[in-house]
Formats: sequence, C-alpha cells, structure tokens
Amino acid sequence: MVLALRGRIKKVFSNLKQEVDVIVVKNSSEPYMDYNFFYVTGLEMGFFEGCAAVLFPDGKVNLIVSELESRNIGGFKGEVFVYKKEKEFEELLREQLHSCDFIGLNFDGMVYSDFLKLKKMLPGREFLDVADGFMKSRVVKDEYEIEFIRNACRIADKVMMEIPGVLREGMREYELAGEINYLLQKNGADKPAFDTISSFAGNTAIPHYSHGSIELKKGDLVLCDFGACFKRYNSDITRVFVFGKANEKQKKMHEVVLQAQEIGFEKICEGVKGRMVHNAVEGFIDESEFKGCFIHSTGHSLGLGVHDGGIGLTSDVEAELKENMVLTVEPGVYVSGFGGVRIEDDVLVKKDGVEVLTRVNRELIEV
Amino acid sequence: MVLALRGRIKKVFSNLKQEVDVIVVKNSSEPYMDYNFFYVTGLEMGFFEGCAAVLFPDGKVNLIVSELESRNIGGFKGEVFVYKKEKEFEELLREQLHSCDFIGLNFDGMVYSDFLKLKKMLPGREFLDVADGFMKSRVVKDEYEIEFIRNACRIADKVMMEIPGVLREGMREYELAGEINYLLQKNGADKPAFDTISSFAGNTAIPHYSHGSIELKKGDLVLCDFGACFKRYNSDITRVFVFGKANEKQKKMHEVVLQAQEIGFEKICEGVKGRMVHNAVEGFIDESEFKGCFIHSTGHSLGLGVHDGGIGLTSDVEAELKENMVLTVEPGVYVSGFGGVRIEDDVLVKKDGVEVLTRVNRELIEV
Repeated sequence: MVLALRGRIKKVFSNLKQEVDVIVVKNSSEPYMDYNFFYVTGLEMGFFEGCAAVLFPDGKVNLIVSELESRNIGGFKGEVFVYKKEKEFEELLREQLHSCDFIGLNFDGMVYSDFLKLKKMLPGREFLDVADGFMKSRVVKDEYEIEFIRNACRIADKVMMEIPGVLREGMREYELAGEINYLLQKNGADKPAFDTISSFAGNTAIPHYSHGSIELKKGDLVLCDFGACFKRYNSDITRVFVFGKANEKQKKMHEVVLQAQEIGFEKICEGVKGRMVHNAVEGFIDESEFKGCFIHSTGHSLGLGVHDGGIGLTSDVEAELKENMVLTVEPGVYVSGFGGVRIEDDVLVKKDGVEVLTRVNRELIEV
Repeated sequence: MVLALRGRIKKVFSNLKQEVDVIVVKNSSEPYMDYNFFYVTGLEMGFFEGCAAVLFPDGKVNLIVSELESRNIGGFKGEVFVYKKEKEFEELLREQLHSCDFIGLNFDGMVYSDFLKLKKMLPGREFLDVADGFMKSRVVKDEYEIEFIRNACRIADKVMMEIPGVLREGMREYELAGEINYLLQKNGADKPAFDTISSFAGNTAIPHYSHGSIELKKGDLVLCDFGACFKRYNSDITRVFVFGKANEKQKKMHEVVLQAQEIGFEKICEGVKGRMVHNAVEGFIDESEFKGCFIHSTGHSLGLGVHDGGIGLTSDVEAELKENMVLTVEPGVYVSGFGGVRIEDDVLVKKDGVEVLTRVNRELIEV
C-alpha cells in the first residue's frame, strides 16, 4: 500500500501542466472534504476536518493533523505533525513549505475562504491549480482501488439480490430505503454510497428522487438506486422491479433500456471517446417509442466520489476512455406521471472491451 | 413556510457587514454542496449539483436548476429557470444579475474554481463575502427549523432507547452501526446525520472513531454517537453503556462526565459567552482524577450541518449565546488503552436557561 500511495502521488505530479515544488491538500469543514486527501493518504477512518496532506514530487506525504484526528492514523507511514490550535497548524504548514515557491492546490476541492487564508499565511508564493492532475490520476484506478470497488460492487449485487424478498404490499418508499441501507451494512458496506433512491409508481420518473412515503401497490414499478461505500470507495447500481405482473408498457421500457445498456457495454473499450458511448446509447433510445425520454448522461466515473469526475459518458466528452477506468453505464427512460426505468451497472474499462462489475437481476423481475 | 424563507433571506441581508445588490448561492459537485442553498429554498429532496439560488434584499428567491433537478422542486414558490447545458446556466445567471454590481457569495461554501468561473462570467462586478451573514442568521433557528430539529432529536432518543436490547456478546462494531442506522430510518430519519460511531472497549477512547470489526465482550464499554437527519436538519447524541457489570473506573468516568455536562447545562443561557461554558466544563473535569482527558470542545452548533458553524462551546469563543440557538453539550474523558466516556445532548438556548432536546438513558446502563 505504501508503494501504491507513492505511485499515486508521483502520478499526480507527472500529470501536472505546470511544475510545482509541493502540493497541499487541505480539508475545510464538513461537507467540504477533499477526496484527494484520502487518495494520497489511504486513511480509511476519521473525519480530518481542517487537516492537510503535504505532497512532494518524490512521492513522500506528510500529514498535519489535529490532535482529535491523530488517533485515526494507524498504519500511516509518512511523517505526522499534530496541532492543537489553528495557530500551530499555520506554523507547521509554514515549516513544511519554507523552501517551496510554487505550491499546488486543488482549486476544485478547496473553499475560496481557505484559499485566501493560505495566501495570507504564505506570502510571496505562487499558487497553481492541480485539480486536473488529480483528476487525470484518479480517473485511472490502481489495483488497490479496483479491489475496493470490486468489493463495493459485490456488496451492491448481494443487496440487490435480496430486494425481491423484501418488497411487500403497503410498504412505504422510506421503509424500503431503510431495508436497503441495513442490508448494505449487513453485507459489509461502511455506509451507503449516497442517499439511497427507492421510488414507487410515478415517482420512478424522477431520476434524482430519494424516497417519500407513498405505499407500494400491485402493478407498481419499483426503482432502487444505491451503492455500497467500502473503505471510502463506491459502487452504484440501479434496477427496476414490477410489484406484481408487468404490463406491456413497463416491459417495453425495460427492454429498450436493457438493450441500450448492452449497446453501451459494446461500445466501451480503451480509446473510445466518452461522447461516442453516450451518443450510441441515446441514439438507440431516440429511435424507439421513448424518443426524448432519456434525460441524463449515460454514465459517470466512480471511485472515492460517486460522481468521481475526470471523465463521463456525456454528449460533450471528447476525452478517450483508458484501461482501468471505472464507469457507470445507466441509460433510463422517464415518462412523467407513468414512471421510469433505469438500469445501471459499474464497469471496468479494458483494452479491448469492458468487465461488468455488477451483474445481478438484469432481466425484469416481477415480484 | 414561504414567509419563513422570506424572513431567512431578509435576515441574511440584514446581517451583512457590507451591502450587496444580490446574493448567489451556487452548489458545486458533491460533496461541495452549500447548506445555505437549502436554508433559503427549503427544498427537502434532491441533490442540486451545479444549481444556484439567487436572493434579493426583499426576501425573493429565484432558482436556476438543471433539468434533472427540476423534478425535485415541488412546493417551491419562487421563480424557476431550468437549464440543460452549462452555457444556458451562464445565460440565465447573467440575465438575473444584469442590474447588479455588488454580488454576495459564500466564500466558505464555494470552491475556488467556481469563484473564478463566476468572476469570468460576470466581468466588472464586485464580489463580496456573505459567509458571515449566513452564519449569523443560521445560528439562531426559526420555528420551522426548531420543529425539524425536535423531530430529529425525538428519533435519536427513540433509537438510543432501543440500543440495550440490540447488544449481544460477540457482535461486531460495524454490526451495531448497521442496527443503529436501520433503527434511525425505521423511526423516521431520512438518513443518519453522519457516519455513526459505535465503538467497544479501548476503541471508545478515540473520539472520531467510526466502527471497526472487534467483537463485544463482557465488561466492555460501548460508545454510540449518532444522529437523525430529518428534512435536512440533524440531531447528535452520544451515550456509553457497559456490557455487563461496570467496574469502578468506568463508573467514576461516567459520573464525572455526567456532572460536567450538568455544569454545562447550568451555564447555558442567553448572553453567556461560548468559552465560559467550555471553561466551566473543562475546569470541572480537570479537577477530577481525569485531568487532561477531555481533548475536544464542549459543543457545536447544530442544524443543516452537524457541525453547523456560527458558534461553538470552545475555549476561544467570545461570542455570546442567543435565544433559539441549538447546540450540543458533549463532555468526555478518554483514557488511551482503557476507554472513553462521552455524554452528548442537544439543547435549545432559552433566555434564562436551556431546554434539553435529547434526554434518554443519561444514567450509566449495565446491559
């Protein structure tokens, strides 16, 4: 793991457009925590509000942590400096950076007021944005990351398998969300990857619905979109069930979406542009009777973040896929008032194709 | 509710140090979402990545939302502008601000790259920090907020009541966390307020531990620190149990912490400085045999954020408490290797004292 962390840090430096002497990853307060802090430290437990990681081009990382969080750094191999008051943090940071003129910061992961504070704390230095370097590095996963994501995917699969057994008439959406989250943790997730979406009937037509209190009735579509967070890495899966017997329209929606997803899988391999995948998937849906009903992108990068950035499967993404990227493939059709179907799986990009990491219940299940 | 939102927005403007023509609250990507967006819109469901709320001094609020999130704004009473592409977002925002020269932004809640984008998007305007205005407003809760927090506290109380019945020998820490989170949602929480902490034995000495895989043994301390999130508002409660018969040291720790908390309650009322409360609590602990074992602050503000900002009960807080603030009071003593005891409750500040919102299981329970 230590070598992997060194590798990550070196990769970030090598992906920078402009050279810097050092990179500082500084957390603000919850919820403004920089995932890059965990990318370069590998710390699996703790909050680390206000703490900083100082990265050097040779792959070394030093930690400046509050006394409170200093108890959560077991296993960390770099140098650690503990502060009690903000003033001590400043002194420690200044010491670390005394011979550095060009300082890299993640402009996408630091609140503006923290930037202003650092600028004041370190006069005469030049601050350069390293957001892109982090993204380019993080978007291609190393073996440890892939293993964590595989675990998160296995857990999501297990939970999705159990859902048909959980559904019962009159159950409320929020109760289903509660059951899903419970199953996630029972199966080894540290927590749900995001606010679990469990919607019934017409609510399934709202892609970013979470859960309300309507009751499950015979014939309803049931949409479950959730993921497992395992050692800070996430999975993200969506399935739609029919509670009772599916009608023709529900079947047709499911069929079109499933085929659209297969087209996505077929398109994905190293070298393909993100937009090519999306356009193929969207094009297929727009040739069906559900033209215009696919209202979001085909997929996003997955990792420490659920929407992990760096690349996506969207109409405007010119960037090419690379081996060991992890992406969701999640076409959907949404018919206001009637309902929606989305099928979402996580895939690992290979040189010549795709490995689908989540795989259960892809056929339409009538419960 | 509409009137309450207007009231909140007017309060924010009246709390500004420098006048502005308009305030823009802009979300970045997860996890960089500004709680102030939800404070001024009251929206209870949805993610709203990239969306913005535009606030005017008369209390009016307009929404600029992505097509995806436009399905989550049921009940919102202001004007709504929907965009599909980032370019449309820019145009809509420019239109909204065409006659505004002084634009307020939350420097504490906006990533630096978003600030740079807005600056480029809106040349010739002056941007002023309104973080303080939001904090000053949010720290004193209105009746809707108090009602939501009361609900979140009721749920936390109910769950804490059920914990003795859940503990069993050999149970792992993460299993207990799973049970707690399940009970939270069963009792009406939208989700846990934060990563539930459930630690056993020596791990209870780590305040920001979350949960690992050690097994529960007879005689162990069991520390549970969790909260309910109800319509985006949070509660935060901690109790310590002994699994089996408590020994003298465990009893003594609990006694000292409970007394320290009572001292905190007694000190709190409108007009008291935050540091006075902390110093009284810490002073009491430092006169006991657990001198130096209290290693964090006495409390924090609670609301849309779990650490809601604006005020705290810390040694350096000169600000005075005000009626209708909501704070945690959470003294603790931590003995490395042996264990820790923390007792945490949420309180509503009154003119002449305190109302304790969480209240169950304050005595030491042997399970």
